[in-house]
Amino acid sequence: MELKLCVSKSLSRPFCNSSHIVGRKAPQLCSCKGNFTKASYLSTSGNGMSLVAKERVMVDTYSFRMNGNNGASPNIYFSKRVLDYLDDEYGGVVINPENLPSNPSVFASVLRSSLSRWMLMGKKGVWLKLPLEKSELVPIAVKEGFQYHHAERRYLMMTYWIPEGPCMLPDNASHQVGVGSFVINENNEVLVVQEKHTAPALTGLWKLPTGFIQESEEIFTGAVREVKEETGIDTEFIEVVAFRHAQNVAFQKSDLFFVCMLRPLSNQIMIDDIEVQAAKWMPLDEFTEQPLIQSDNMFKKIIDICIARLGKKYCGLNVHPVVSKFDGKLSSLYYNIVDAPDSNCQTTSL
Amino acid sequence: MELKLCVSKSLSRPFCNSSHIVGRKAPQLCSCKGNFTKASYLSTSGNGMSLVAKERVMVDTYSFRMNGNNGASPNIYFSKRVLDYLDDEYGGVVINPENLPSNPSVFASVLRSSLSRWMLMGKKGVWLKLPLEKSELVPIAVKEGFQYHHAERRYLMMTYWIPEGPCMLPDNASHQVGVGSFVINENNEVLVVQEKHTAPALTGLWKLPTGFIQESEEIFTGAVREVKEETGIDTEFIEVVAFRHAQNVAFQKSDLFFVCMLRPLSNQIMIDDIEVQAAKWMPLDEFTEQPLIQSDNMFKKIIDICIARLGKKYCGLNVHPVVSKFDGKLSSLYYNIVDAPDSNCQTTSL
Repeated sequence: MELKLCVSKSLSRPFCNSSHIVGRKAPQLCSCKGNFTKASYLSTSGNGMSLVAKERVMVDTYSFRMNGNNGASPNIYFSKRVLDYLDDEYGGVVINPENLPSNPSVFASVLRSSLSRWMLMGKKGVWLKLPLEKSELVPIAVKEGFQYHHAERRYLMMTYWIPEGPCMLPDNASHQVGVGSFVINENNEVLVVQEKHTAPALTGLWKLPTGFIQESEEIFTGAVREVKEETGIDTEFIEVVAFRHAQNVAFQKSDLFFVCMLRPLSNQIMIDDIEVQAAKWMPLDEFTEQPLIQSDNMFKKIIDICIARLGKKYCGLNVHPVVSKFDGKLSSLYYNIVDAPDSNCQTTSL
Repeated sequence: MELKLCVSKSLSRPFCNSSHIVGRKAPQLCSCKGNFTKASYLSTSGNGMSLVAKERVMVDTYSFRMNGNNGASPNIYFSKRVLDYLDDEYGGVVINPENLPSNPSVFASVLRSSLSRWMLMGKKGVWLKLPLEKSELVPIAVKEGFQYHHAERRYLMMTYWIPEGPCMLPDNASHQVGVGSFVINENNEVLVVQEKHTAPALTGLWKLPTGFIQESEEIFTGAVREVKEETGIDTEFIEVVAFRHAQNVAFQKSDLFFVCMLRPLSNQIMIDDIEVQAAKWMPLDEFTEQPLIQSDNMFKKIIDICIARLGKKYCGLNVHPVVSKFDGKLSSLYYNIVDAPDSNCQTTSL
């Protein structure tokens, strides 16, 4: 009984199966919806679960008829075990990682019979989460035709696409997200740092505090946190003034970097001496006149934008919490305040 | 000879080792720099390679002195094989996946002696890329203390942190990125679609074309492509007018969704009947008056923003190609044109 391999496709394809288009395309303005339900068994927070399991399935044995030799041989009836699994909303199954056979050869046998069973049931995507502690099951799943989907330190997610035709399973995360913070005080001094460990070409450069946002962290809170960690300065987020999109930065993934304007709420600098060599309040002119900044188109443009914003000659995007009924999520929407009295974005056409 | 496990840390930590802070913090305005160099062996495009290998290393055998029993026993000299590897720029090593022993027990032995050797050399992060075809080596690496880092369909990246103290290796991608396109013609009609496969609650909704951006695709080209694929309409990107940041959407990853305004360049609709049930030009009033839009705060706000932008009462961010000397990358910087005659962002303070 031949099963098809899952062929890699681009990010643009629909979700795990046609129904996933709903998740991907629904107007809740989220790139993605359905597939975290598929990952519910894998969820560290269990809160996806209620969204997932239309039906809890526990099949110990079943019987089916299998035609050998292209149906030439007599039909054979027999019985097999099936792995504990949940149906997802999209015609796929999510194998329960808590209930996997510990014996590799038993796992191999039950996985094979489970795939046969799910094929007969017309299932599509199969999701198998293998904790690090069960790594010996990885090559067995690969032998059965599973591929890797994504991994975190303590688990590997594997997938199998049953139907004929191209695999419609969603891809994993595609981007890293970082923030840089422009913090300027009432004396027109910019908060700058010197990296402790820097490339020779950048030695002596005074730069804006930057860093990654943490898992599940907001852009506006990440910017404030990074400034606090590196300089000890408390700040208030004002706007995202610009962002950069760069390709193939880390592990062939892309990078989004948000330039934020923050208002300082304190003045006393206390550096993080793991990351930062020095930090100080630097006169804006002195900061922008640094050769390494003047000679770099992008960095110079960023500073021009921040200065324009200070003069209310520029409109960044500020953050607003919103809840969409389509996924019930509290999320952050970044936009200008339109026609608000305090907006710096009143336009000449008003 | 005990080696330390790599303890998971947050995204905010420095890169693989202290030097990685350069990559993470450098003012090239990219969240990340160094770690794609670590992945060079893994790069499908080989172009990272020149950036990586300070020194090509091929060690067949070496001798070192090991003190057993905390140095109580006499010193023993012996010889071991070491896996083929490259030094990365950050005190780590990248194992050559092309040159791994095919015999699992040989791999186990050589991996163990390699780790001992690298520890004696003061190495930090160890990167092991295992192609799908070599999955039988995964449990062996786990037994030696490796953890998963990330995976794509055809390979699994594993890491090992040698030094005392917390693991400083970078995390993998954290976000998915999608786009939604507001396309309006000179008759004040919005380009809308009905999904072919939709949740019952959304049945009958006419919505904006949306979708994921593809791997290594720009936001502005992804928006144009999705509109073309779903509706057959050619468009020109104008601006990102807003974006939404949502947490824990897919596999505990986050989601960034960019709302784009596009100008139509054609009028004849031809739908993609895999994803889309129907597409049409819908009068703006009729579009916004749909109950499912009127009853959703976020979606209503997005439409308000787009309408304000049409009236030049709003400033989105348009795209500008820039090259930064700090990474030499051609990337896309999204910002307003400041004080440009054709800008819609002239402010009252001008």
